[in-house]
Amino acid sequence: MKPNGIITLLTDFGEQDGFIGVIKGVIYGINPAARIVDITHYITPQDIEAGAFILNNSYQYFPKGTVHLAVVDPGVGTDRRVLAVQTDNYFFVAPDNHILKYIFHECETFTVVDVLNKKYFLDEISTTFHGRDIFSPVAAHLSNGIALDELGERITDFDRGEVIEPMQSDNKLIGRIIYIDRFGNLITNINQSQIIKHEISVHIGANTIDKLSNFYSEVEHGKPVAVIGSSGYLEIAVRNGNAQKQLGVNRSDVVELLFS
Amino acid sequence: MKPNGIITLLTDFGEQDGFIGVIKGVIYGINPAARIVDITHYITPQDIEAGAFILNNSYQYFPKGTVHLAVVDPGVGTDRRVLAVQTDNYFFVAPDNHILKYIFHECETFTVVDVLNKKYFLDEISTTFHGRDIFSPVAAHLSNGIALDELGERITDFDRGEVIEPMQSDNKLIGRIIYIDRFGNLITNINQSQIIKHEISVHIGANTIDKLSNFYSEVEHGKPVAVIGSSGYLEIAVRNGNAQKQLGVNRSDVVELLFS
Amino acid sequence: MKPNGIITLLTDFGEQDGFIGVIKGVIYGINPAARIVDITHYITPQDIEAGAFILNNSYQYFPKGTVHLAVVDPGVGTDRRVLAVQTDNYFFVAPDNHILKYIFHECETFTVVDVLNKKYFLDEISTTFHGRDIFSPVAAHLSNGIALDELGERITDFDRGEVIEPMQSDNKLIGRIIYIDRFGNLITNINQSQIIKHEISVHIGANTIDKLSNFYSEVEHGKPVAVIGSSGYLEIAVRNGNAQKQLGVNRSDVVELLFS
Repeated sequence: MKPNGIITLLTDFGEQDGFIGVIKGVIYGINPAARIVDITHYITPQDIEAGAFILNNSYQYFPKGTVHLAVVDPGVGTDRRVLAVQTDNYFFVAPDNHILKYIFHECETFTVVDVLNKKYFLDEISTTFHGRDIFSPVAAHLSNGIALDELGERITDFDRGEVIEPMQSDNKLIGRIIYIDRFGNLITNINQSQIIKHEISVHIGANTIDKLSNFYSEVEHGKPVAVIGSSGYLEIAVRNGNAQKQLGVNRSDVVELLFS
Repeated sequence: MKPNGIITLLTDFGEQDGFIGVIKGVIYGINPAARIVDITHYITPQDIEAGAFILNNSYQYFPKGTVHLAVVDPGVGTDRRVLAVQTDNYFFVAPDNHILKYIFHECETFTVVDVLNKKYFLDEISTTFHGRDIFSPVAAHLSNGIALDELGERITDFDRGEVIEPMQSDNKLIGRIIYIDRFGNLITNINQSQIIKHEISVHIGANTIDKLSNFYSEVEHGKPVAVIGSSGYLEIAVRNGNAQKQLGVNRSDVVELLFS
Repeated sequence: MKPNGIITLLTDFGEQDGFIGVIKGVIYGINPAARIVDITHYITPQDIEAGAFILNNSYQYFPKGTVHLAVVDPGVGTDRRVLAVQTDNYFFVAPDNHILKYIFHECETFTVVDVLNKKYFLDEISTTFHGRDIFSPVAAHLSNGIALDELGERITDFDRGEVIEPMQSDNKLIGRIIYIDRFGNLITNINQSQIIKHEISVHIGANTIDKLSNFYSEVEHGKPVAVIGSSGYLEIAVRNGNAQKQLGVNRSDVVELLFS
């Protein structure tokens, strides 16, 4: 696989304080032909789980050879490691927390390197902004075609995180809310492939939704609705409303799906 | 007209959940040389009128051959149509709601196609994210130079919306607020070309502004001021304040302009 | 120095109302090969000091030949001048307020031109959106390689602003808070080069921090911590908290550093 020059950025830095502009300046200094794409910079600060979810929903839509840079990094300044990863189709650069957990879970073959070669960092390394000083130059060098093994040593003891699968029994799936989007829609870990028949009811908190809909607009305004969301997972929304607030639930809460 | 490789994006998706990054990945997969420009992703969700207004203020500043993608799409998942439009200078891709109403109103000649050719969509079409699955691949193929007629059949019964013009009498113009920006400035549908003399007073709610100013700074702090805004329309602001809140008005409210 | 085609944008326009998209359209119309980078568009409206600070933290991370456009412009519509500046490594375009003060303070040699040549503006100049009509076309022409002197006459009486340095005595530095970021972290004007020994205490409002830490995570949750921030300046944070709120301080407030 050759890099295609695209570098995506996913961070919790926001776009207010100029950090993302600086990262792009560093990248262009190393790879003037880079095409840089923001996935999001509005991950809730230090919310590794949310970063992992958004990255997993996004990375496969990019052409083969894209470098994905994901920096949600509560451990900045400590001795947590920096990872560079190569799968069949993509490169990833990220801190060694579990932000890449879905990639490790779903890709069958990949190589992980502990990035230690300072030749590919900026000359001065701050203690608080490795996104600028380490992560973005490493991503830029990868997009220039440098070999993964140039960056450091291969490791296998990186943080693989934990991908929680729904519990399955004959007529029931017990899943969980794994992400809540800005509209308050609840995305679960129940994949459409697990919903073996269409006759279902969904139970969440004290609420019951008695069918799987095709569109939000199948239910009345203000009513909860269960659909297969754009990521292929069961999603609970309130039409023209905020499901999180209306149903009084939070991430990790249980969602039960009954086949009838 | 040949496409110039620029694709603009105007949506109500926000930049938090990664949707815009995904759209850009899809575009680059189809047109690796695209230059993608965000117009805004902060249209109030499902506010087609606001999307139409911002698009109308923006599209003409781009070079000839730009593809403008506008997705404010309350009908996603229903059978609302997808439009591809070619004017003398631009291409547009949008749902068949009235988000393109100003383009239909102002351009003399244009072609509208009902986009149905699935060859130019992604292979899998979700029910909730046509921005990713239909709109962005279609825009990318247009920017690659595919002919409009390749996408589907020409139609004339698309939603043209309604562009409300001010009512005009000898010494009076009765207009309306058509957009309120993030500072609370009130943009009206009264064009500078309709203001036939400079001696005017402006009446809005219970307030009177007794002249047309050249700059905000002609009035004192906290006072309302009427100017010709950057879009060429009469605009009411409060210097260093929020006109919407201070004057207690909303979109669609009447603004009367008296020639004295 | 030749321009490298990169144009950075720093404004207080926000990204909601489409202004930034329009600016990019204007730039691409003049320089189709431009690479445009957003530094930030979320400067607090009209906060020139904050714009100056962010620009100063960002511009040096871009490759030589970058054009930096900085528009925080309370004087738009008045007769404030438009400046084009060339230093050894960069170009700048900005209103003649003190938004470039750190550049004037830190660069030894530079040329400043009063931009008056309307040939490089848009044909129609609004009174409220010079970012679109003047600043962005001028920046685009500079990135195309036009000579600075083509734009207007050299001047020396531009607004240099005032860069406040800490007051220094044998065992004390009296600095000030010059920026507060979105997390409430307090950035001071005390540079790491002025902190001549590591044994210090920091006094801010009624609070004392009794050492300089290497990382935020050296202190307990909720406790204030003093570190050298990513910009090389003394920074006061509260671990997992908001220092501005918790310490009850604001920009310009005094920060005393005692060497013990």
